Amino acid sequence: MKKAFFLSTYLLLALITHAENGYQLWLRYNTINDKQLLNQYLNSISGIQFDGKTPTLNAAKEELINGLQGLLGKKIIVQREFSNNSIVAGTPASSNIIASLQLKQQLQEAGKEGFIITTAKSNQKNIIAIASNTDAGVLYGVFHFLRLLQTNQNIQHVSLISFPKIQLRILNHWDNLNRTVERGYAGFSIWDWHKLPGYIDKRYIDYARSNASVGINGTVLTNVNANALVLTKTYLEKVKALADAFRPYGIKVYLTARFSSPIELGKLKTADPLDPEVQEWWKQKVNEIFSYIPDFGGFLVKANSEGQPGPQNYARTHADGANMLAEAVSPHGGIVMWRAFVYSNETPDDRAKQAYNEFKPLDGKFKKNVLVQVKNGPIDFQPREPFHPLFGAMPQTPLMMEYQLTQEYLGQSNHLVYEAPMFKECQDADTYVKGKGSTVAKVIDGTLEGHDLSGMAGVANIGNDINWTGHPFAQSNWYTLGRLAWDHTLSAEQIADEWIKQTFTNNSRFVNPVKSMMLASRDIMVSYMTPLGLHHIMGTGHHYGPAPWTNRSARADWNPIYYHKADSSGIGFDRTATGSNALAQYAPAVRKQYENVNTCPEEYLLWFHHVRWDHKMTSGRTLWDELCYKYNVGVDSVRWMQKKWNEQKTYVDNDRFEQVKMLLTIQEKEAVWWRNACLLYFQTYSKNPIPAQYEKPDQTLEYYHALLFPFAPGNG
Amino acid sequence: MKKAFFLSTYLLLALITHAENGYQLWLRYNTINDKQLLNQYLNSISGIQFDGKTPTLNAAKEELINGLQGLLGKKIIVQREFSNNSIVAGTPASSNIIASLQLKQQLQEAGKEGFIITTAKSNQKNIIAIASNTDAGVLYGVFHFLRLLQTNQNIQHVSLISFPKIQLRILNHWDNLNRTVERGYAGFSIWDWHKLPGYIDKRYIDYARSNASVGINGTVLTNVNANALVLTKTYLEKVKALADAFRPYGIKVYLTARFSSPIELGKLKTADPLDPEVQEWWKQKVNEIFSYIPDFGGFLVKANSEGQPGPQNYARTHADGANMLAEAVSPHGGIVMWRAFVYSNETPDDRAKQAYNEFKPLDGKFKKNVLVQVKNGPIDFQPREPFHPLFGAMPQTPLMMEYQLTQEYLGQSNHLVYEAPMFKECQDADTYVKGKGSTVAKVIDGTLEGHDLSGMAGVANIGNDINWTGHPFAQSNWYTLGRLAWDHTLSAEQIADEWIKQTFTNNSRFVNPVKSMMLASRDIMVSYMTPLGLHHIMGTGHHYGPAPWTNRSARADWNPIYYHKADSSGIGFDRTATGSNALAQYAPAVRKQYENVNTCPEEYLLWFHHVRWDHKMTSGRTLWDELCYKYNVGVDSVRWMQKKWNEQKTYVDNDRFEQVKMLLTIQEKEAVWWRNACLLYFQTYSKNPIPAQYEKPDQTLEYYHALLFPFAPGNG
Repeated sequence: MKKAFFLSTYLLLALITHAENGYQLWLRYNTINDKQLLNQYLNSISGIQFDGKTPTLNAAKEELINGLQGLLGKKIIVQREFSNNSIVAGTPASSNIIASLQLKQQLQEAGKEGFIITTAKSNQKNIIAIASNTDAGVLYGVFHFLRLLQTNQNIQHVSLISFPKIQLRILNHWDNLNRTVERGYAGFSIWDWHKLPGYIDKRYIDYARSNASVGINGTVLTNVNANALVLTKTYLEKVKALADAFRPYGIKVYLTARFSSPIELGKLKTADPLDPEVQEWWKQKVNEIFSYIPDFGGFLVKANSEGQPGPQNYARTHADGANMLAEAVSPHGGIVMWRAFVYSNETPDDRAKQAYNEFKPLDGKFKKNVLVQVKNGPIDFQPREPFHPLFGAMPQTPLMMEYQLTQEYLGQSNHLVYEAPMFKECQDADTYVKGKGSTVAKVIDGTLEGHDLSGMAGVANIGNDINWTGHPFAQSNWYTLGRLAWDHTLSAEQIADEWIKQTFTNNSRFVNPVKSMMLASRDIMVSYMTPLGLHHIMGTGHHYGPAPWTNRSARADWNPIYYHKADSSGIGFDRTATGSNALAQYAPAVRKQYENVNTCPEEYLLWFHHVRWDHKMTSGRTLWDELCYKYNVGVDSVRWMQKKWNEQKTYVDNDRFEQVKMLLTIQEKEAVWWRNACLLYFQTYSKNPIPAQYEKPDQTLEYYHALLFPFAPGNG
Repeated sequence: MKKAFFLSTYLLLALITHAENGYQLWLRYNTINDKQLLNQYLNSISGIQFDGKTPTLNAAKEELINGLQGLLGKKIIVQREFSNNSIVAGTPASSNIIASLQLKQQLQEAGKEGFIITTAKSNQKNIIAIASNTDAGVLYGVFHFLRLLQTNQNIQHVSLISFPKIQLRILNHWDNLNRTVERGYAGFSIWDWHKLPGYIDKRYIDYARSNASVGINGTVLTNVNANALVLTKTYLEKVKALADAFRPYGIKVYLTARFSSPIELGKLKTADPLDPEVQEWWKQKVNEIFSYIPDFGGFLVKANSEGQPGPQNYARTHADGANMLAEAVSPHGGIVMWRAFVYSNETPDDRAKQAYNEFKPLDGKFKKNVLVQVKNGPIDFQPREPFHPLFGAMPQTPLMMEYQLTQEYLGQSNHLVYEAPMFKECQDADTYVKGKGSTVAKVIDGTLEGHDLSGMAGVANIGNDINWTGHPFAQSNWYTLGRLAWDHTLSAEQIADEWIKQTFTNNSRFVNPVKSMMLASRDIMVSYMTPLGLHHIMGTGHHYGPAPWTNRSARADWNPIYYHKADSSGIGFDRTATGSNALAQYAPAVRKQYENVNTCPEEYLLWFHHVRWDHKMTSGRTLWDELCYKYNVGVDSVRWMQKKWNEQKTYVDNDRFEQVKMLLTIQEKEAVWWRNACLLYFQTYSKNPIPAQYEKPDQTLEYYHALLFPFAPGNG
């Protein structure tokens, strides 16, 4: 007894000294607090029966053992023979028991990566079966089962089937070989290229585990602004080491392909995609890559955009470029993800129109193993954009969604912004291309046009900060990407709910207020940054903070003034027929609603219209007063978040509590900065006063003008 | 009982899932395994009596509570009144009990930062007193007391006094404002400048705790290749936030001063140190700094070296430059650390001589609050250098030691190299300037010439890797700096012993073999990199790997061929009277030993002499054969370390075991690389065969020539 006392107090200490540092993400597996529920689980789970020895099945088994040991506070025995209340996991091939259950129809429905979790009877015994057609599906099933426990679900009569709606669920790392991360705000790249292949950082394994736990099955390791060196032998050996580490977790590795590699590495005179020598060079290079990584996924390419080389350098089309690479990877089962984020160096057309202009005519010209990867909106990951007009406009081409998890324009890692509502807003938008209900989600998952290939990518917000994402709440955005790519019908609230429970606690006194903060957070940010359809008014280069006054960038369309077009008459970008006519790129039903200043949703008003300062808004306020109102609501709402968070002190560990508290204090300061800087600047055009009920800016416009951030992170 | 069962198994899990990631360094405070000893400690420690409320005393109290709770597996109560076997900690000012003990004489001996730990009787009760004259001393005493427990010392009759032999015990961070770290191999800078001052990373606190635990009392935050921006208001607010976080732990903050700041920030036309406007600018700037940080430590300056601006730009001396800054900080109690690491852009003299040439004539010309900071050897942190000839040569000037903890030339973070033997070798070297026994240590601690100021700096090996230093064993070098600066009479073995016990385990089956690895590691590295006095034959720029063939660097003395001078007759740098005569900078007794090829210690042979390939060594081998022997012994010894380490698997957690194992595998490969590349290259001069008993190089010299590392870390 005395010994037991020592042991438990000793271990209590272990717990105390190992404070929550966020490293474990949503896979903490802390023992369930609710004693009654814990007993119920303990009664329902007597052992683990897990045949099969593949690396993926071993990973699944280990996760199940560790997860249950943590959650149940008891080591659950792995059994040779199952007993009553065993968990039995496997595929029909790996497990005789699974094979003997009558699951054929359900397994057919589950497909390649799906799984079934169900109570069943076998040999008169009650078991919980985790079954799939593939090892990876078993792994996903195990993670799902653990999530049921982590979120305190009743498992007594569990019977579910789950399978991904989207095939390619991929992180895009904009990581450079020198370990800087373009638009990275969570430290530096987790890929320690210099120490690879000899040193496999434990982080690589935990990265793979965390991805697998939410169904992410691919990762593009390198920046879309690509360096050809990653395709050399030295680096391919390093890439292979990462691929080997990720493979057991069902994660395929992809690379970005610099289009000019045949010149830079192959010493050819051209990178013309129709040149046979170039084509041969890529074929040989691809063969070499697959000799290292037999399940290499393929390439992600940014071409002829922002200075990157591409097929247009040789008067060829994006389709010519993509198809050449597609042909090279095709024999190995690889794919090409070709980015639609292009804007010409020459064309003076509205930047919002350019991707559509270039890609729409190419519909039907891409090889079968090409996906065109399209950002959610037509500009560039702004706090709020209407959906990209390419969605629905290329019926013969599988379009892949590109979301940005890293908060380039969303307060970087200082602001609490839960992105699921933003992603859902885009997915739920109706393109009307095949009548009402032709949502972006249906374009993406391939059901609208019957495509086999489908994909969703998130630009990673991961760095080498101990907690991976800088802001503790930014972990939720990584989590969201996986969950939404698996099942885009999940609501933002559902995802927040399960994330909070796994990451913090199941205590509803914490879950509910924190969920309300998260769900409101994106609209709050839009309010204090870019309300009413404003966009692209941030600082140049680093994109940190407001700079709506900037008018001296190298290109017209890098300047905020290009986007807000404020003048003495009003503010906003006229994209109707009287302006750039970008609206013509949408289906008539969409166009019709947006082109009329009175039916255009006010959140897109200044995106599509140049509106008079005295325009009456639905609130009854003038546009100027509405702007003042919105900016102030944004600031006030951050203060509301601060209050909410401060009430959580008793429900959360001290380290994360203080961390979020400090970050919310920074967020409040920066929200004030956005409000003051933008209102003072726009006021120089509107000539209207800031209504008396609002806080007066405590600094001058000149003060905000003068702020400089030479070492802001993520800038290239 | 059942509840207790749940609790303990639950907590066991917590321990398992929180694997050892190295973050806690040597402050793990795991519960003592030895049951008998644990009981003895529990019987000796009944409570804590700790009056006083200053931030430093609070930090000390918190550390004592947490440390004891971890080590003893039991919460030790903080008492208002002490009881039998209480620990009583404080200063005579903070604690009436301490004041009442008869410690006056011992406290006088302990001085400003020292402490006493002793059993005592007070009010008929047995207590353990931790006493000091200052709060910082109490903190050091608490850490020392915890170390006694961590290393399983008997405390039943404890009675000790300890005080630092060196005043300024300082880390030098070569950290840039963009978070790259010059010569950093453990990730990137832990200073997240962008998020400061609003966000205080928990790392800052743990950094300060870890430093205080080994007596480090100062930190230079910024790179010696300095950026003036850190002296602007924006950055001073950030520096203040760090200083505030560190202050409770007795850590002062210092900055590097870019000499041209008056021009760059002050818009003056000159930075001439004798210009009154310049002097006034620095005074105002210093006043501003102290207004943010009242206990700011002062400046570290690299001037007129490797392109940095300095007083010589204005035909002034280093003393002129240092004294101007010293005058500015003097009213506030600040100091200036002026680096002697200079070599002229013009002078074609042996680089080993230049610091002495420039600084020796300035002895006696520096103000009282200036220390001249001298590297341990005359070149640049090579694996083995003789001691710097400036030690002993400037009797009127306090010379501060600059060691390099980060392994720029020591295998970076891939190689297990324990540096204490190297530091001790330098400290124990006899300068003979005041007769036998005039060791470098006595120069440094001020006793040889009776200086009040004394200092020891270590160029930090700290980055944002989770375990701080990249290689788990590199933590020992950070630890060593603190311990040696506190007490340079500690042996390398003592320091290794206590570090291993705190960092891993007290189990002698682990401690002894691992200690033997550590103690041998530096000589092993010298053997496979630069045996027999070779130096500076590494790759250009990044300094990664061997490149003795390099002969095209911008300056002659950046080329390896400048240093090894291999030719058909022999190899080595003649620094005797027939050569550069650098030996003339040492005292006659030293010179006499070194100038004779037959009495010169063989480890310095090629440092001081150009030696014929067929020269007979004491081993009886020719020089060439000895080189082959040494390089092969080095490689074999790495394999010995691998074998030793593999035997430790059962005594160490899996994560760190695997980590070190992977790193030793890399080290072995790189040792082979060094051996092969160097022998193949030197063989082109010696024309001798590699004796048959040794492994043949498995690559050609051309192969090694062709290796490129464009993204090697730490390069600027």
